[in-house]
Amino acid sequence: MAKVGLIMGSISDWSTMRVTADQLTALGITYERHVISAHRMPQTLQSYGEQAAANGLQVLIAGAGGAAHLPGMLAANTVLPVIGVPVKSRALNGMDSLLSIVQMPGGVPVATMAIGEAGAKNAALLAAQILGLQDERIQQAVIAFRAQQRQEAEQSERQL
Amino acid sequence: MAKVGLIMGSISDWSTMRVTADQLTALGITYERHVISAHRMPQTLQSYGEQAAANGLQVLIAGAGGAAHLPGMLAANTVLPVIGVPVKSRALNGMDSLLSIVQMPGGVPVATMAIGEAGAKNAALLAAQILGLQDERIQQAVIAFRAQQRQEAEQSERQL
Amino acid sequence: MAKVGLIMGSISDWSTMRVTADQLTALGITYERHVISAHRMPQTLQSYGEQAAANGLQVLIAGAGGAAHLPGMLAANTVLPVIGVPVKSRALNGMDSLLSIVQMPGGVPVATMAIGEAGAKNAALLAAQILGLQDERIQQAVIAFRAQQRQEAEQSERQL
Amino acid sequence: MAKVGLIMGSISDWSTMRVTADQLTALGITYERHVISAHRMPQTLQSYGEQAAANGLQVLIAGAGGAAHLPGMLAANTVLPVIGVPVKSRALNGMDSLLSIVQMPGGVPVATMAIGEAGAKNAALLAAQILGLQDERIQQAVIAFRAQQRQEAEQSERQL
Amino acid sequence: MAKVGLIMGSISDWSTMRVTADQLTALGITYERHVISAHRMPQTLQSYGEQAAANGLQVLIAGAGGAAHLPGMLAANTVLPVIGVPVKSRALNGMDSLLSIVQMPGGVPVATMAIGEAGAKNAALLAAQILGLQDERIQQAVIAFRAQQRQEAEQSERQL
Amino acid sequence: MAKVGLIMGSISDWSTMRVTADQLTALGITYERHVISAHRMPQTLQSYGEQAAANGLQVLIAGAGGAAHLPGMLAANTVLPVIGVPVKSRALNGMDSLLSIVQMPGGVPVATMAIGEAGAKNAALLAAQILGLQDERIQQAVIAFRAQQRQEAEQSERQL
Amino acid sequence: MAKVGLIMGSISDWSTMRVTADQLTALGITYERHVISAHRMPQTLQSYGEQAAANGLQVLIAGAGGAAHLPGMLAANTVLPVIGVPVKSRALNGMDSLLSIVQMPGGVPVATMAIGEAGAKNAALLAAQILGLQDERIQQAVIAFRAQQRQEAEQSERQL
Amino acid sequence: MAKVGLIMGSISDWSTMRVTADQLTALGITYERHVISAHRMPQTLQSYGEQAAANGLQVLIAGAGGAAHLPGMLAANTVLPVIGVPVKSRALNGMDSLLSIVQMPGGVPVATMAIGEAGAKNAALLAAQILGLQDERIQQAVIAFRAQQRQEAEQSERQL
Repeated sequence: MAKVGLIMGSISDWSTMRVTADQLTALGITYERHVISAHRMPQTLQSYGEQAAANGLQVLIAGAGGAAHLPGMLAANTVLPVIGVPVKSRALNGMDSLLSIVQMPGGVPVATMAIGEAGAKNAALLAAQILGLQDERIQQAVIAFRAQQRQEAEQSERQL
Repeated sequence: MAKVGLIMGSISDWSTMRVTADQLTALGITYERHVISAHRMPQTLQSYGEQAAANGLQVLIAGAGGAAHLPGMLAANTVLPVIGVPVKSRALNGMDSLLSIVQMPGGVPVATMAIGEAGAKNAALLAAQILGLQDERIQQAVIAFRAQQRQEAEQSERQL
Repeated sequence: MAKVGLIMGSISDWSTMRVTADQLTALGITYERHVISAHRMPQTLQSYGEQAAANGLQVLIAGAGGAAHLPGMLAANTVLPVIGVPVKSRALNGMDSLLSIVQMPGGVPVATMAIGEAGAKNAALLAAQILGLQDERIQQAVIAFRAQQRQEAEQSERQL
Repeated sequence: MAKVGLIMGSISDWSTMRVTADQLTALGITYERHVISAHRMPQTLQSYGEQAAANGLQVLIAGAGGAAHLPGMLAANTVLPVIGVPVKSRALNGMDSLLSIVQMPGGVPVATMAIGEAGAKNAALLAAQILGLQDERIQQAVIAFRAQQRQEAEQSERQL
Repeated sequence: MAKVGLIMGSISDWSTMRVTADQLTALGITYERHVISAHRMPQTLQSYGEQAAANGLQVLIAGAGGAAHLPGMLAANTVLPVIGVPVKSRALNGMDSLLSIVQMPGGVPVATMAIGEAGAKNAALLAAQILGLQDERIQQAVIAFRAQQRQEAEQSERQL
Repeated sequence: MAKVGLIMGSISDWSTMRVTADQLTALGITYERHVISAHRMPQTLQSYGEQAAANGLQVLIAGAGGAAHLPGMLAANTVLPVIGVPVKSRALNGMDSLLSIVQMPGGVPVATMAIGEAGAKNAALLAAQILGLQDERIQQAVIAFRAQQRQEAEQSERQL
Repeated sequence: MAKVGLIMGSISDWSTMRVTADQLTALGITYERHVISAHRMPQTLQSYGEQAAANGLQVLIAGAGGAAHLPGMLAANTVLPVIGVPVKSRALNGMDSLLSIVQMPGGVPVATMAIGEAGAKNAALLAAQILGLQDERIQQAVIAFRAQQRQEAEQSERQL
Repeated sequence: MAKVGLIMGSISDWSTMRVTADQLTALGITYERHVISAHRMPQTLQSYGEQAAANGLQVLIAGAGGAAHLPGMLAANTVLPVIGVPVKSRALNGMDSLLSIVQMPGGVPVATMAIGEAGAKNAALLAAQILGLQDERIQQAVIAFRAQQRQEAEQSERQL
């Protein structure tokens, strides 16, 4: 059963959000993925948020660009932690996406990541860190990932 | 029966949005007003949008600040024209509000006004210009308003 | 007879504004289109604005970039609703276009759309939503468009 | 035993971060609080991060302003989820704080909140949502909080 | 007969533009001053621009804020040099005013000054530098002003 | 004898500033052109500014990018009108160039143009408008240029 | 004999730059201070830069706001290290000052500090770190300062 | 023995930081270079900073992008002067890198350079200017570099 719900506002966000998907897989975390547009499918968005906890999901990850309302509106409909990924937008390079996601009013948080692929990768890692609090296997996967990336960074010096 | 629905995301937006209310009244336009928080009352928001046309409303005006999702989510739930007013926010002076409202994806427009009170006033005027297309009395009120503000601008020179 | 006047500040804006034109056509809305530069053809701009209502137009759409004065100056010369599209500019990616259009002073609104093609598409849709208040056929076209884009969004999930 | 470590970069951040503290208390979540400056106490920061999990903490919340390195450096030293609060800075209103916290490279996420008090409040709520995945009492506290704030929003309409 | 036309978009701009007026007076330059709103008095603006040269004016100075179209539209209607002063705006501190004035398209220049009072002062000085090319008395006044401000700067060191 | 001094901070600015040169030529205005780096040739810059008037120049045009000090430092060393062109910079798209040029303190104006080629073209036109105040031939050239560009704009509609 | 030259562009910068002066004194570093406006006293600026090394100075600190050319122009006239402090400006909060100072072209560096008082303090500390490379007493003063501020940070926790 | 430590946060920064390396070599300055990621190798970063002075290094240069914590955290662990180079980032063009590096709190300075290659080059030159205070040979190399670049700038005029 999926522990993470990976949602994107448009199929065009998939080129960014597949980084999240790949990282979740690499960490051994089950997920389901959906295109749910906040503006074109508002009822679906609301239902998905309302039923997410009952469906056994534990963390939601939402990626969107421009006036990015998806993460915040998901968060409004669930008490599960929601992680937001600002997708790089065409005109403003994701600054609009970032502000639309991070500047949530007091009462409904969205855990906001960096713009673009770095943020997409980190969404998966944060989900793992959250799930790892109760799942030793996942926490070990995060620790192993950290060790590996430290090692890669150390070894990269040889390429100078 | 109200022709305009005036919605704000928080009671704290009223100090800005009362400018809209006063201008609507001055133009002889009936309206109803509500606090509907996109993030704290998402079901109410959705219902309100879905039923707005059936309830006889013709234009919706929504003011919100920060990660301002209210105008866009209203627009997602109705085919009535939605006018968005970016309320000045504490840290970023309304730049976050503006981008969250104006940068809507293709398919669901929000008619975005200037940040703050100028935008709040103009929301009422735009609503009047839209309603005036089918209501001669309202169009005359806009024309009279324009004449008066031109006259005031001309006379203000005496204060130099 | 044309219901919408589609104006652009320069022939170079056409690559953006043709998205508006195509969407108007798809919704069955008649329009006329013109290049009227606010800075190179100011008298033409003024005349066009002044006579727009008398010529039977109901909504004006204006696209411009940089110090984009066209939408605001059109709005100053008519009581028809004016929709502004900030065209993406070379150096500042349309942020200058956006602020020049949206930050209108109290008294003369411009219904501002997103920067670039998304905004150009939405300008047509907003015009349709406005015209649809008194033209059942156009409102049905908007409703059909919304249904279709929802369906496309739903089906796009298969591409994941 | 404290479940949340609440860290700030300077005593001057306390006027913002006490909002986090108050909200944690209101939700019944135990926490410890410390001033640990990333730049003036780097060894302390590192030790704190390294030992946080062993000390029984489950979530870290870090608030800082300007070139805000505290949340990211904490995250670099632990696999616990780290929530970052950008404190409003004097010259740039927290835009520097926000970018310094949110734009983390792939590999080390910080769950970034809104600038200032809204973000400080949401940091506590996100911590509660995370802890609530394994602590039914905390999840119920979040649900109750949500219900109450919805009710307050609904009732605020009377003040119009 | 006035050599400089000093125009402002609103009586509220006078607190800034009086700095221009005072500096023109100090340099012995005759001027006329008017409130001409680009958006509320577009015909007046156009007429003023068209007749400015015939009326014996040599330089126009225009101050405006927000979506500041006044300087650019004046420039569109005259071949006299037009100097633009971006007035500090409420929400965006004059960044909108600046971009609306300076980012003119190729073909119609506006000589843009700094935001606010520094720019207002410099508008008068630039006008004097332009007029000084053909009026020895004015050029001497500029040279004297420069000498005086250098002296004041040098003497200010004593206040350290 | 040259009436305009066209200065650029680096040979790499020539691709932008040749637009100025071409427009000056088209308007029949004599000019001299130099590479004078404010930071690499400060003495040359100072001498050039100090002697510009004595050398018969009437207007200086300076293009520079990044921390663009050339226009302001030229202006500090002459009472001739100085026109500044912000060259588009690599990282910040000319926003740094623009602010470094336009935000001059009270006392020393720089007539700032738009970023990049549009600004480069307008620098030539503003110089012509200034020179045209005392040279009927140049003023007629500006009037002819304006008429031609209006005609081109009008004719461009056929390309729609 | 002074080792540090502390220069500001205007007497109004003294309220910021006195923080530098106080910190230099606290670290036992001799300095001289002057008001030298890049735009009002360009010859003085050039002479000062050219003679700084011969006068026994080892580090220059320059504070300025807006189109802040002082640090860069000093750097152009000396091979001594130049530290720049962006003073908070009225309209743009020092963002213009920062970009005007930091975005120097390749070939002439300015060691740029944070906007405002934090940067002013750090300018003194950086000067001390540079001088400390050859002056054991100064390096010890820096080490002592660091120890003291760490201690103060640690003790500030008691105020929570 | 190396006098300069050249550190980058990621191997991907090398394309920028090699400009620093080449310029150091051209000036005859010995250096060592390392990849030390602040977030992936925090202990290494801390050790490196703590031991830098004892290892005979005199100046540290650190290049990083995005939420660039490397220069500031190095500075926190040493009293050697630290020069920071903001590497151009993918989404925000290095504005995030710049603010993360330059906006250091009072007490721990980082000598910040321009974004990208210009800044990378200047980092080497600033290091040389600092080292040149006690090493006549290096100071002469800087003077020679300055003379050469002035000559190249002067000669570049021939390419116009």
